[in-house]
Amino acid sequence: MSKVAILGATGYTARELALLLLKHPNAEIVCATTRDENAGTFSDSHPALRGRFDLKLTQYSLERLVDSAVEVVFSCLPHTASAQVIRPLLEQGIKVIDFSADYRLNDSQTFEQWYDVSHPDPERVGTVPYGLPELFRQDISHANLIANPGCFPTSALLPLGPLVKQDLISATDLIVDSKTGVSGGGRTPKPGFHFAECNESIRAYGVGTHRHAPEINQLLERFTHRTPNVTFTAHLAPMERGILSTLYCRPQPNVSHGQIRDCLEEYYRDETFIRLVDTPPSTRQVSHTNFCDIAVSHSTEWVVLTCAIDNLIKGASGAAVQNFNLMCGYEETTALL
Amino acid sequence: MSKVAILGATGYTARELALLLLKHPNAEIVCATTRDENAGTFSDSHPALRGRFDLKLTQYSLERLVDSAVEVVFSCLPHTASAQVIRPLLEQGIKVIDFSADYRLNDSQTFEQWYDVSHPDPERVGTVPYGLPELFRQDISHANLIANPGCFPTSALLPLGPLVKQDLISATDLIVDSKTGVSGGGRTPKPGFHFAECNESIRAYGVGTHRHAPEINQLLERFTHRTPNVTFTAHLAPMERGILSTLYCRPQPNVSHGQIRDCLEEYYRDETFIRLVDTPPSTRQVSHTNFCDIAVSHSTEWVVLTCAIDNLIKGASGAAVQNFNLMCGYEETTALL
Amino acid sequence: MSKVAILGATGYTARELALLLLKHPNAEIVCATTRDENAGTFSDSHPALRGRFDLKLTQYSLERLVDSAVEVVFSCLPHTASAQVIRPLLEQGIKVIDFSADYRLNDSQTFEQWYDVSHPDPERVGTVPYGLPELFRQDISHANLIANPGCFPTSALLPLGPLVKQDLISATDLIVDSKTGVSGGGRTPKPGFHFAECNESIRAYGVGTHRHAPEINQLLERFTHRTPNVTFTAHLAPMERGILSTLYCRPQPNVSHGQIRDCLEEYYRDETFIRLVDTPPSTRQVSHTNFCDIAVSHSTEWVVLTCAIDNLIKGASGAAVQNFNLMCGYEETTALL
Amino acid sequence: MSKVAILGATGYTARELALLLLKHPNAEIVCATTRDENAGTFSDSHPALRGRFDLKLTQYSLERLVDSAVEVVFSCLPHTASAQVIRPLLEQGIKVIDFSADYRLNDSQTFEQWYDVSHPDPERVGTVPYGLPELFRQDISHANLIANPGCFPTSALLPLGPLVKQDLISATDLIVDSKTGVSGGGRTPKPGFHFAECNESIRAYGVGTHRHAPEINQLLERFTHRTPNVTFTAHLAPMERGILSTLYCRPQPNVSHGQIRDCLEEYYRDETFIRLVDTPPSTRQVSHTNFCDIAVSHSTEWVVLTCAIDNLIKGASGAAVQNFNLMCGYEETTALL
Repeated sequence: MSKVAILGATGYTARELALLLLKHPNAEIVCATTRDENAGTFSDSHPALRGRFDLKLTQYSLERLVDSAVEVVFSCLPHTASAQVIRPLLEQGIKVIDFSADYRLNDSQTFEQWYDVSHPDPERVGTVPYGLPELFRQDISHANLIANPGCFPTSALLPLGPLVKQDLISATDLIVDSKTGVSGGGRTPKPGFHFAECNESIRAYGVGTHRHAPEINQLLERFTHRTPNVTFTAHLAPMERGILSTLYCRPQPNVSHGQIRDCLEEYYRDETFIRLVDTPPSTRQVSHTNFCDIAVSHSTEWVVLTCAIDNLIKGASGAAVQNFNLMCGYEETTALL
Repeated sequence: MSKVAILGATGYTARELALLLLKHPNAEIVCATTRDENAGTFSDSHPALRGRFDLKLTQYSLERLVDSAVEVVFSCLPHTASAQVIRPLLEQGIKVIDFSADYRLNDSQTFEQWYDVSHPDPERVGTVPYGLPELFRQDISHANLIANPGCFPTSALLPLGPLVKQDLISATDLIVDSKTGVSGGGRTPKPGFHFAECNESIRAYGVGTHRHAPEINQLLERFTHRTPNVTFTAHLAPMERGILSTLYCRPQPNVSHGQIRDCLEEYYRDETFIRLVDTPPSTRQVSHTNFCDIAVSHSTEWVVLTCAIDNLIKGASGAAVQNFNLMCGYEETTALL
Repeated sequence: MSKVAILGATGYTARELALLLLKHPNAEIVCATTRDENAGTFSDSHPALRGRFDLKLTQYSLERLVDSAVEVVFSCLPHTASAQVIRPLLEQGIKVIDFSADYRLNDSQTFEQWYDVSHPDPERVGTVPYGLPELFRQDISHANLIANPGCFPTSALLPLGPLVKQDLISATDLIVDSKTGVSGGGRTPKPGFHFAECNESIRAYGVGTHRHAPEINQLLERFTHRTPNVTFTAHLAPMERGILSTLYCRPQPNVSHGQIRDCLEEYYRDETFIRLVDTPPSTRQVSHTNFCDIAVSHSTEWVVLTCAIDNLIKGASGAAVQNFNLMCGYEETTALL
Repeated sequence: MSKVAILGATGYTARELALLLLKHPNAEIVCATTRDENAGTFSDSHPALRGRFDLKLTQYSLERLVDSAVEVVFSCLPHTASAQVIRPLLEQGIKVIDFSADYRLNDSQTFEQWYDVSHPDPERVGTVPYGLPELFRQDISHANLIANPGCFPTSALLPLGPLVKQDLISATDLIVDSKTGVSGGGRTPKPGFHFAECNESIRAYGVGTHRHAPEINQLLERFTHRTPNVTFTAHLAPMERGILSTLYCRPQPNVSHGQIRDCLEEYYRDETFIRLVDTPPSTRQVSHTNFCDIAVSHSTEWVVLTCAIDNLIKGASGAAVQNFNLMCGYEETTALL
């Protein structure tokens, strides 16, 4: 049994995380924090959990975590706020799964350029395993700190990673057109996420400036000696959850569509959560699950891959639990099926 | 005043068409047809029009149209069914605006290849003006028959047409990623359009096989001596109406993003229905209108264009009324603002 | 031609109002105000109107309205803020259509009790015509100030008014169960209107405390010597617009369901915007229109009436334009069909 | 471990049932049937279950069920079709949980009147426990056949049952206004469930004729010597799942709102799945769960109760698993938390 804590407990990823951990036979949530001084219990923030998880929310305190014998912390804090608490946690021997972008990139300069803020713990950037078990399982199993992946990068890297690794597609000519549900934008009410603005509407946002673009590029870079170059566009679709990424790739000369499908089939043969499907997947079919469904389609000389995940599960809290299982030596699929 | 008829009156495009024509000071709908022998009135099919347009639906009859002195027919019939009635209508001197794909392509062989059926009127294919007034206004004004454009092609050709014409972008390396509302699939209930399947879900469909791909290619071909090559993917989004197309283009060497914006700005300066906007448009902002909003965004070496239309208005019935106005000499924006 | 102004121009009712007035041959919007000092143009707030209505928004100034020769003001200001500007406007001979609740009730005490604030202009309360033309047309035609009705009361009073007036149903045993789209809650982002909270969800709110309850009661009181007693419950449905009210009434002894239908049929025979329909109406069929569709259904000894309106049109801006037409002597349906 | 079978495996309730049973440590689905001869596997019908439940669907065969040593059958067949297979199953000693309405009512005459068809097994009607464990647990534990409740009746009976039983409210003056998601209408595509018709729309249906009205009345009758009289109206809301019922009750003389709340609080004190909440519940907060959230609100002399369930879980498959647990002696909440 592992005692765990959730930092930043009022958002959607924290709710999904709790829903998963409550089903986990080896996890006990002993602490959940928020900065909001008037917050009541976890279920006050998340009425779905009334009667199931009524833990009082508290302010963050390293001492309390140590006193409670917390072994693993899930940090749902915003970027930089997360890194600030992580260093002392690691020093206390507490393992951390970080939902923020703080440790995802290869170097702190890129972080500072895209996030426009100093990194509180720059030396560690580039040394932290990226929490996509299907691509980096070995690193994760032995880590004390995991950078839990961004939702869009998850939907892009799972299909693209093996193909770039085996040089079946050009890494420098990749287009990632992603559609996300509104929960991806967090729980804070904003004009762009107001129901009467979002419903019956779809739009692109952050074109050319989205912070998940360098994340996709830098992670792909780990699979190739070339400098990957992804054109990434995010779209807000009128749905609560789900990401569908449509990926346009150029096969290398003499590589057929069939080889691309075979490569993924082979690479993910033993992966529980990756399903190669024949029909382009809907986000509905992976909704509320940790599955990632991928289809390979024929179209002109570009190959079109479509990849569907639940942004809150495989794109966030499900991945975190998968990482938790690996870090603690539990069966990897525990609480995820 | 022009007497007009609507063929195939029970679908969504017919409803939207009637809503527009009822506001038109120079149009009188004197006939509306359906194959359904039990159909009652137009408003029985479209309850929104109760009390506003209660015309009895009738079976198609050339004689009745002639006897009613119909001058213009809007054909919302399916492909091939439409071409079959159009020939005799034209012989009677009746003008036709055809919503089907029958006369959109450059040649009947391509039609037969993609639609997998013989064309009932193959000689005429390739001679009929394509009803996008912003690109082909001159041809439309003098025509007796107009091929009303497909909804996806409209959202792709309006941004791409001028750029290909002026050779600012490569015509052979174009990616069109389109998201449509469910009304684009018609009114017939099908599993894929069932609310409980569509809601909270997005998916690609017809990847590599969608019939609007050759339409986009063949229309672009009219602007260049090269053979255009568009990779087109359609997606079904959980909304009733609207199309957002995200277009990835490669500028020709030494062409800047600014020049691309300037070209469109210039080309559409006097067009009422084309709006160059600074923020990627939402489909909501053009919903229930004949507007087409286009944004040009900076992203890597690809230029990303986003284009929003209402698939039922600018993508179908609004365009038809715009064509009607041109063909009959009415102010082009009549009933459309 | 009437010069008009819109106060409080950044909300949804202002947008819908502008969309209607732009189609009105006798109205010219010469001024639109907001308290937001950084607001740009009307179309900056409402991108749907880009190129169609780009008037610069200004701070409210009585002088400017007078100088601009404004004849009619549409006030979309919140309650009490509205009454504060209305008195001086009336003194200048400017007519006002007030969207707020300030002048809807029969007396200022009830207002102060339910709105928990002093009324800035208490004497006038109870003397202002209530802007439901189908029930109070005579009063409206001669008025300088109109209290534009609440959206829920509109959907309740149109079916109930004639029945209470003719004493066909009990006024003291009425249940109004209303379902509204999210735009009814205004444009300000709030947790309850966040897309990821609203979608795939319906809930009741303000049970027993909603301010439209006294409005329904007091207006019904004008039709009977009894004190009406309505149990009103509002629900938030996952849609942008539309109100469906389901009304449970007890017929008076020996009054049949048929008589109830006949009464409404008769009462509304010449009303363009009221449609008695046979099948319980959907909100979709009145969406984006000024229509109010009503069905009378048989169920136990209660009669069940269902009434559908567009909350932003017949429930707000459409009603306002209808009142404007009456006050200024224009054809009542102008810009509304 | 119990071997179970699912009859009628292609619908939504079958999918939800499989999702629950796959998490159940004591259930093994050994057979799933359909009438469709071309059906492939369970996951062909339900892509969400690809790789998780790929059992081949078969035609119904009593022999096969017996040969497979099936102990419990979940019948998701339509009414009358279900009763036809149930008799021989019971004779073989196989327990049955029947999702259809065949055995829910008190007598076969009422069934035949409302369902307009002869009952294939009329003698058994009225003898079968109604599968609402919170109200009829004792009967369920010892039964071989359970009538799994209708979704709307579940949402009405859980709040009303205890109040009628203790005579705190009038049983003859009850109004049940229910709003359901579209999955309640089944998976067969129909015009009324087409996305482009449902979205952005709400409407009443089956007013005065819905078959769940007699079900509510007859079940309430088991708690009182009076003849209950419920006015029931169903509404279709634009969401996939969820039921919200708003219940208007008249307290008996001198019964306060507080006593009504206390009664429910007391009655359901030890029930895991019933939650008395202070704020009117949203369907979202019970979505994908077996919970039933109930609020008691103050409004005029009527008490307004709101009750939210997931129509596919607590309103169908979750209740079935709860009944299964009781019938087989498993912990009642197994696979449901």
